[in-house]
Amino acid sequence: MNLVLLLPEDLQAPDRARLTGRRLAHVREVHRAKVGDDLAVGLLGGAMGRGRVLRLDDEALELALTLDQPPPPKLPLTLVIALPRPKVLNRVVAAATSLGAARLVLLNAWKVEKAYWASPRMQPDSLRAQMLLGLEQARDTALPDLRLARLFRPFVEDELPALLAGGTGLMAHPGTGEPAPRTLAAPVTLAIGPEGGWVEAEVQSLLRAGLRPLDLGPRILRTETALAALVGRLF
Amino acid sequence: MNLVLLLPEDLQAPDRARLTGRRLAHVREVHRAKVGDDLAVGLLGGAMGRGRVLRLDDEALELALTLDQPPPPKLPLTLVIALPRPKVLNRVVAAATSLGAARLVLLNAWKVEKAYWASPRMQPDSLRAQMLLGLEQARDTALPDLRLARLFRPFVEDELPALLAGGTGLMAHPGTGEPAPRTLAAPVTLAIGPEGGWVEAEVQSLLRAGLRPLDLGPRILRTETALAALVGRLF
Repeated sequence: MNLVLLLPEDLQAPDRARLTGRRLAHVREVHRAKVGDDLAVGLLGGAMGRGRVLRLDDEALELALTLDQPPPPKLPLTLVIALPRPKVLNRVVAAATSLGAARLVLLNAWKVEKAYWASPRMQPDSLRAQMLLGLEQARDTALPDLRLARLFRPFVEDELPALLAGGTGLMAHPGTGEPAPRTLAAPVTLAIGPEGGWVEAEVQSLLRAGLRPLDLGPRILRTETALAALVGRLF
Repeated sequence: MNLVLLLPEDLQAPDRARLTGRRLAHVREVHRAKVGDDLAVGLLGGAMGRGRVLRLDDEALELALTLDQPPPPKLPLTLVIALPRPKVLNRVVAAATSLGAARLVLLNAWKVEKAYWASPRMQPDSLRAQMLLGLEQARDTALPDLRLARLFRPFVEDELPALLAGGTGLMAHPGTGEPAPRTLAAPVTLAIGPEGGWVEAEVQSLLRAGLRPLDLGPRILRTETALAALVGRLF
């Protein structure tokens, strides 16, 4: 937790916050803060700055806030990721958020098992909790725009072309021999397939929608590793 | 497991392997292979190719091997990573391996807790298991050269300069304003600090040894995310 992320309901006044629960425990046990210390804080959806510890005990953390800085800019990036299995989902959502993607679309694909969509980790509160962890990690306050696209074709045929307008669309796909471009027009849309890859009909749909294939080389990376490598490469 | 990684003791003949345990279970339950199927296989430290399933049941998987391809080339990259806490260590070792780093040095630092070195995850068998998972993920057969450097100064002062000779040394360090170079002389040595960063004396030692600082921007990334982003950027 590199940033104490404040929710609107934590505010007792515009310059005063009171926290309990997980964040209180973390500040006590991991940060080992004391009264008078300054912590890096940010208000969800708002500004960042510092919070001076006024009170810290079993019951609550109280902070005097100075929120005078904007959050870091988002990357002009839409990630379109085939829904990973639940075990991987949390890491992918948190990593995409910490890397600064402006928008995250979780998309169905042939090799996405139906059960993944029914996982408790797909509940809005669970997804939001992972995004908050990503913001706390990266020191950011702005949630990415999260979209669940449970139907491949309507999303790819009707919505994806509009997302691509004026920018660059890329699809990670092994074996095409196309290296990742090193410079590109923003905004960027980057599609990452499921374990086992897109099936051929999906590849053809994504190409028709305007994505260019991009070959990451002979190594097959885990989704969150590939994601970070691509963002590092492109931005 | 994108590659069935064979150990020398699995070979019953140069072209015949017999597997039990974890890999048998994975091929049955995840790959759902059948007799006659071809699997991607590789011999640890050796060639890759395919293995035709001759037998697959409760007891064993037997494969007829055709090993006719080299593994993918390693990146000319030495990663020098401040030893992460045990919970993070496994992911970092597996990710560094799957990304193709030729050498991985786990280094002590001021903010590395002593207890991390004593973790069961630091046992050679545990570290090796994580590297094998990274190879299976990436379809590679060559283990990286793993080095444990329990003393910061002797490593940085006596060994690091030689690693840097003729190549490029970089140190991820926030706040320096130095963007990551996009092209560089190989071999590359890349140092990544602990949670909470290098202390100033460590920064000075690393600079004296010949590393250049590199600023990843305002976002603070988890070690394995930063690692993947840097490798994606530099290679």
